[in-house]
Amino acid sequence: MCGIIGIIGDPLASQLAYFGLYALQHRGQEACGIVSFTTGEDGDLSSHKGFGLVNDVFKEDTLKKLPGDLAIGHVRYATQGGHSAYNIQPFLFRSAKFGSITIAHNGNLTNAKELRQELEEKGSIFTSTSDSEVILHLIARTKVDTLEECLKEVSKRIYGAYSIVLATQKKLYGIRDPFGFRPLVFGRRGKAFILASESCALDLLDAEYLRDVRPGELLSINCENFSSTSLPRETTPRYCAFEPIYFSRPDSLLEKETVYTYRKAMGKALAQEEKLDVDVVIAVPDSGVPAAIGYAEASGLPLELGLVRNHYVGRTFIEPTQAIRDFRVKLKLNPVSSVLKNKSVVVIDDSIVRGTTSRKIIRLLRDAGAKEIHLRISSPPIAYSCHYGVSTPTRDNLLAAQNKLPAMADILGVDTLKFLSLESLKKVLEKGTSTKHCHACFNGLYPEEIFCKIPVAPAD
Amino acid sequence: MCGIIGIIGDPLASQLAYFGLYALQHRGQEACGIVSFTTGEDGDLSSHKGFGLVNDVFKEDTLKKLPGDLAIGHVRYATQGGHSAYNIQPFLFRSAKFGSITIAHNGNLTNAKELRQELEEKGSIFTSTSDSEVILHLIARTKVDTLEECLKEVSKRIYGAYSIVLATQKKLYGIRDPFGFRPLVFGRRGKAFILASESCALDLLDAEYLRDVRPGELLSINCENFSSTSLPRETTPRYCAFEPIYFSRPDSLLEKETVYTYRKAMGKALAQEEKLDVDVVIAVPDSGVPAAIGYAEASGLPLELGLVRNHYVGRTFIEPTQAIRDFRVKLKLNPVSSVLKNKSVVVIDDSIVRGTTSRKIIRLLRDAGAKEIHLRISSPPIAYSCHYGVSTPTRDNLLAAQNKLPAMADILGVDTLKFLSLESLKKVLEKGTSTKHCHACFNGLYPEEIFCKIPVAPAD
Amino acid sequence: MCGIIGIIGDPLASQLAYFGLYALQHRGQEACGIVSFTTGEDGDLSSHKGFGLVNDVFKEDTLKKLPGDLAIGHVRYATQGGHSAYNIQPFLFRSAKFGSITIAHNGNLTNAKELRQELEEKGSIFTSTSDSEVILHLIARTKVDTLEECLKEVSKRIYGAYSIVLATQKKLYGIRDPFGFRPLVFGRRGKAFILASESCALDLLDAEYLRDVRPGELLSINCENFSSTSLPRETTPRYCAFEPIYFSRPDSLLEKETVYTYRKAMGKALAQEEKLDVDVVIAVPDSGVPAAIGYAEASGLPLELGLVRNHYVGRTFIEPTQAIRDFRVKLKLNPVSSVLKNKSVVVIDDSIVRGTTSRKIIRLLRDAGAKEIHLRISSPPIAYSCHYGVSTPTRDNLLAAQNKLPAMADILGVDTLKFLSLESLKKVLEKGTSTKHCHACFNGLYPEEIFCKIPVAPAD
Amino acid sequence: MCGIIGIIGDPLASQLAYFGLYALQHRGQEACGIVSFTTGEDGDLSSHKGFGLVNDVFKEDTLKKLPGDLAIGHVRYATQGGHSAYNIQPFLFRSAKFGSITIAHNGNLTNAKELRQELEEKGSIFTSTSDSEVILHLIARTKVDTLEECLKEVSKRIYGAYSIVLATQKKLYGIRDPFGFRPLVFGRRGKAFILASESCALDLLDAEYLRDVRPGELLSINCENFSSTSLPRETTPRYCAFEPIYFSRPDSLLEKETVYTYRKAMGKALAQEEKLDVDVVIAVPDSGVPAAIGYAEASGLPLELGLVRNHYVGRTFIEPTQAIRDFRVKLKLNPVSSVLKNKSVVVIDDSIVRGTTSRKIIRLLRDAGAKEIHLRISSPPIAYSCHYGVSTPTRDNLLAAQNKLPAMADILGVDTLKFLSLESLKKVLEKGTSTKHCHACFNGLYPEEIFCKIPVAPAD
Repeated sequence: MCGIIGIIGDPLASQLAYFGLYALQHRGQEACGIVSFTTGEDGDLSSHKGFGLVNDVFKEDTLKKLPGDLAIGHVRYATQGGHSAYNIQPFLFRSAKFGSITIAHNGNLTNAKELRQELEEKGSIFTSTSDSEVILHLIARTKVDTLEECLKEVSKRIYGAYSIVLATQKKLYGIRDPFGFRPLVFGRRGKAFILASESCALDLLDAEYLRDVRPGELLSINCENFSSTSLPRETTPRYCAFEPIYFSRPDSLLEKETVYTYRKAMGKALAQEEKLDVDVVIAVPDSGVPAAIGYAEASGLPLELGLVRNHYVGRTFIEPTQAIRDFRVKLKLNPVSSVLKNKSVVVIDDSIVRGTTSRKIIRLLRDAGAKEIHLRISSPPIAYSCHYGVSTPTRDNLLAAQNKLPAMADILGVDTLKFLSLESLKKVLEKGTSTKHCHACFNGLYPEEIFCKIPVAPAD
Repeated sequence: MCGIIGIIGDPLASQLAYFGLYALQHRGQEACGIVSFTTGEDGDLSSHKGFGLVNDVFKEDTLKKLPGDLAIGHVRYATQGGHSAYNIQPFLFRSAKFGSITIAHNGNLTNAKELRQELEEKGSIFTSTSDSEVILHLIARTKVDTLEECLKEVSKRIYGAYSIVLATQKKLYGIRDPFGFRPLVFGRRGKAFILASESCALDLLDAEYLRDVRPGELLSINCENFSSTSLPRETTPRYCAFEPIYFSRPDSLLEKETVYTYRKAMGKALAQEEKLDVDVVIAVPDSGVPAAIGYAEASGLPLELGLVRNHYVGRTFIEPTQAIRDFRVKLKLNPVSSVLKNKSVVVIDDSIVRGTTSRKIIRLLRDAGAKEIHLRISSPPIAYSCHYGVSTPTRDNLLAAQNKLPAMADILGVDTLKFLSLESLKKVLEKGTSTKHCHACFNGLYPEEIFCKIPVAPAD
Repeated sequence: MCGIIGIIGDPLASQLAYFGLYALQHRGQEACGIVSFTTGEDGDLSSHKGFGLVNDVFKEDTLKKLPGDLAIGHVRYATQGGHSAYNIQPFLFRSAKFGSITIAHNGNLTNAKELRQELEEKGSIFTSTSDSEVILHLIARTKVDTLEECLKEVSKRIYGAYSIVLATQKKLYGIRDPFGFRPLVFGRRGKAFILASESCALDLLDAEYLRDVRPGELLSINCENFSSTSLPRETTPRYCAFEPIYFSRPDSLLEKETVYTYRKAMGKALAQEEKLDVDVVIAVPDSGVPAAIGYAEASGLPLELGLVRNHYVGRTFIEPTQAIRDFRVKLKLNPVSSVLKNKSVVVIDDSIVRGTTSRKIIRLLRDAGAKEIHLRISSPPIAYSCHYGVSTPTRDNLLAAQNKLPAMADILGVDTLKFLSLESLKKVLEKGTSTKHCHACFNGLYPEEIFCKIPVAPAD
Repeated sequence: MCGIIGIIGDPLASQLAYFGLYALQHRGQEACGIVSFTTGEDGDLSSHKGFGLVNDVFKEDTLKKLPGDLAIGHVRYATQGGHSAYNIQPFLFRSAKFGSITIAHNGNLTNAKELRQELEEKGSIFTSTSDSEVILHLIARTKVDTLEECLKEVSKRIYGAYSIVLATQKKLYGIRDPFGFRPLVFGRRGKAFILASESCALDLLDAEYLRDVRPGELLSINCENFSSTSLPRETTPRYCAFEPIYFSRPDSLLEKETVYTYRKAMGKALAQEEKLDVDVVIAVPDSGVPAAIGYAEASGLPLELGLVRNHYVGRTFIEPTQAIRDFRVKLKLNPVSSVLKNKSVVVIDDSIVRGTTSRKIIRLLRDAGAKEIHLRISSPPIAYSCHYGVSTPTRDNLLAAQNKLPAMADILGVDTLKFLSLESLKKVLEKGTSTKHCHACFNGLYPEEIFCKIPVAPAD
């Protein structure tokens, strides 16, 4: 997962990009970078990147060295491709035809490996292991007159998920793949235009949300105005269901609705799927809070603060030589004994991937005296890996891919375990419209045949 | 405010102190330190201190340099006494009679200034501006045979609030002033004894909570057992009311009850004091959450997540050159528009000191579309400065000391404003018992005549 | 200027590379890097690079992350191409045909700009501004069967100075351009083979010096043995005269003679060109010391320590607000008044580029009481820029390009000024043999027509 | 060993102190600190201290936080008293009578331990293990009317070596113990007065050297002028002989003569004590260079650069896993083979303490091919520990305390070994005058009976 931002038309573009990335920090904490230009000038672009949070990588001094009215930025989640500085985006290169080009990309290409091989055989040199560099090489080798045409040509060659901001010394471009897997929003702040992964970045910047970039849309933006055109490949949109379930921030808008609304509705739906006789509803903070509110409301059960989150948790710890049980989870979550002691509780969380953290949380609750523990998950079981940019593990490591429900309850140590049904999830997300989502991580039906030979969802 | 910890009888004492301080981090984020000994040996003590969070100051290597089976630690809140490394505790000195002594102190002496002057005239040299160093000098100058006697003598000279852990190469001591302003708990982990500001530190360490150290108690602990004696001055206990309201962690025990229980009860009491016709209850996270749960439960109004807390907020920011409205609050709190738009909301928080942050939060909610905003505070108005260790500003800067209720509502920009009554607060805290608290910050009645000539609460 | 090293056949190759770079630190202080492989395995290569001295960039931990029996390293002098992390060598890429390739390069290509333009038009993407990346792209695009052939083909396309170490997962290669501008030596340490810019790196590693890599030679080395072949272009060698004058370390061997021997001989020759009646000979430390020893010996004048070098000079300074005369020079060099007061002195240095530092040193000596100052330079005046890797400024900034001798003496503030004649220099360097050097920086006669249209030295 | 500086009367006092410490860096590299005041104001003093070189501890920002027209500074050598931040000088305290006082001290008190014990019994608290803190406590406890009187009283209690700069918010004081063990000079820069350990600090600051502070002198300096008075104890001066031999910088003045002059004269005297038939004279750089120049001059033998010093040696190294012979010495010193191969050489160094480094240097020279090695030391053998501030090891670790000359030659691996005779040393240092030095490290005759029961030199 990643977060991207692009700004054109503000003399403090890199500063706005900095705050925008700050708002998108939940989409990637491993590394970040910003590249800036002065439009209309032939001068150099400025760039700064590094490992760490936005706040650590960028300092007052750094931003001063990123002048210009055009900036793009990127936050990166840990990737499989190794921990190399060469993988930190935005990437940049000098095109013989279009001058300096810089790009920030959110998503995963499904044919990156094949394209890379083909390009290397033609003499291209790769410095990163990132999919995104493949796009640069395709741009460099496409012989057409305009960059818009070039990007359309390139889009014919690449498959999978890509939301992209790209900039030259003249223009800012926003691209969203034809399925629209990853979100990308378009906004305005005074005279400046902004592209961002989520609307929460616009909110922090006091910018106006104009609309989502449409699946398959290519936006070309200069300092005065913008134009829109369509990529050549046409498909039915397949928004990633995991964005509303887990990835996007609760206050962000997805298809014009806040993520909080979806999550609360999932919790409600979960409660409506059964009748449970327990003392209290508690959430795994902060991920399970919206669904727990919905669950409590729909079930009429009292909501209590059973787990408190510690706000001083750093990124690195000294491992205790002398065993402290469930050490890492305890540093972050603290059970409130008065809520739990001798109570039967229903615990709400948004999803289960490997199940290791959930198991530790359950043990924490048991140790604090909970009599009965019923775990409820406000999304269906994740049984398949994602090929479109959500960093899920291989199936061997997915709890729900390896175990049936009773075995899962056993492993996690709960009295009962239930997930939201896929039907209920669809109802929540589609809101009575024909909006379509990708549910491949739940049912294994991928929207398009990809190169690793996986089953494809039937045409709609 | 500060947090303190002491451990005796575990070969990894400094590591346990490290995790204990970690759990007490909310009591002080400016600086921290740990001192360790090997009991029974005449060797050197080891010490490490620094500015920053526990996680930043201590690393794997640092702990290795803190060997021994006895350790005490301290986390410090920003103090008035200037940002000097000499002020970081634990303090340590070599007493001619008792050998190396190290001390960590939570609280404020009310006659520190007078004592310091007297000591300087006698030729004592101070290296810090801290009250706690005064105690060291009194120890150094008291000519009695045992350290216990010495500490009792010293307690006759000092006034105000002090919870102390003190260690020599033989023993660990725990002291709580006769009023018991600041908490101090006593626990056990295997064969080791532990003293800590709050029980949450015991929980993280898998240690057993034995009991609170009593007001006016002096505990002497060695590797095998402990003995208890009383300080010479007798008074009625006066626990700080601000510990359950704001300072202690929700999962900690105060007088055997979780702080969460008190806070939720304050929210309930707040709801019972009026009947409000609004759409939704929201909390200011995380401080207002327990009271909001209580308020929603008692009022029957729906609780919603109207403000989301950002977990990636660092300690330093780049100030935006181009104005972003309510910038600092926005980095931390994000309004959820769907909850707020065209709604009348009751917002719950735990207390108001200066009111500056509250005003910005209210504006955030208005900008997100809230139609009516009713602010409810689950404690009485703070109108007097604290002299016992809570770092409140002078009266000029206390919103409630300078304004009546309607003016406060006006300044904060809310439609209505109400505080919990002192009577209700007392009922919640006393739980039908005769437990007494200090309410000086609400009513100006300080438990004892202090040197700054302030009114004194009538004897109980 | 740069320094390079390559090792094959030692399980601690990266550690040897680290110490080798350490010995070559005088050739470049801006940045450094090491890449390592395990030969015979198909695994990943490991890489670490950074800005700063070898000692700052590499730590115990870093070397542990650079396993393998093959390593190459690079130290870089500040370059014109901007201060970008992308410019730090060794460079590396995955060739479709030959697998991972990594390269470290010392020297300057004279047709880099033209080649880069040509490659960009063909769709190549450049990530650095370095000449060396051009070589990588040429390798990637050359379609031949073996890497040896490939390197020969590439050598037909590139002009200028290049001493190169290059490695694949099977072999280490050493290349020296047909003119042999930059040094490259070949040595052995137990079973391991080593390539290095200077023999002083072999000395530090307790390795045996085998021989210089010959101009136009391509060495292919595996874990057992090596083979030698010639590059297709043939020319007369033209060793850089500035290596013995200034750049190489005094204890290194150039054409089997120590640099110290050349420098002392230059000082002797300087003394033999005139008869000067002064009190004392002093050196500008440390650059002028060998020549000063030679000058004193040949002239019979007493050598004294007139300037002491301060060993605690860091890289950054606080600029004094209140003027301290000749501040920066004074931090580094301290005049010894008893040697200088009322004395007529001859001051020896190795070269003058801009003259700014020399002027300040002279003023320092005057302030310390020197009555007469005669500056003698143990090389001819530098009047032309170098195009082969010595980082000289443009002619506008070369003191000797802009001024005649009397004007130079005036600017520097000396009573008399003399340089070693080019004839004497040639005699010293050629040692009666037919060895040829490049003297372009003195006489403007470049060994080959280069793309910037500069005069060419007549064929020998 | 340490270096101290004090400045009064310049609005940029801390900046001058910074550069002054920079010039004194050779006297102590472990830690440093500066304290500054604004004279005449009652405001706070400012302080900054840390471990590391002056250049590392102080940055532009730091100096801005050290305002005022009065500053004192200190550089510290590694001490026995443990590596604690509390030991970094200047020390400071608030005296009830004289206000804030800060002190920087060079030297060792011989009765520090006894005084400390006495003070602790009276209730004083020590935070450091430094002798200098004893002086502070004596000041705090001395009841007299003026600080001058107080300092005189204190001087009656302390024995041993002390050169001190001390400052209040009104005045700067300079004190040198009655024996004058450690140097202290007095200078002027415009209207400002400066005290410094060595004249080289005045030179860097463009300040005028006025005179040495006299043994037993107390200088009181304000912004306009200064007055001088004598400490009550009278003795014959006993300047430390190790200052001209090793510790002071070659360009500094000691008794109005440059240290270089003394060192060269020692080398000459060494040559005059024998007739040696060798090929070449070489110095151990940089310590042995002045004496080697003197030796070569007096003997008529040619001086050559046999060892080159590496300027890029950092403070920490990665230890090579695979043995590199004489690794640490080799990082710093590089033998020049052409000077050494098949030659008989006389190697000059200034002193031998443990002998470990010398042994490694000798092996380096042998490995480089030296046929015969004759080591000559330009001072007598060090056979006794120093109690006056030179950080010599205990006698067990002094090569000359444990071995006779032939055994020493054997251990060091040289063909012959000679030291300068004490008689010759005296002649060089006394220059025909009655100046007296302390030679206790050579002959064990300490100038005054000290508390560790060591023999005393007969009265002069």
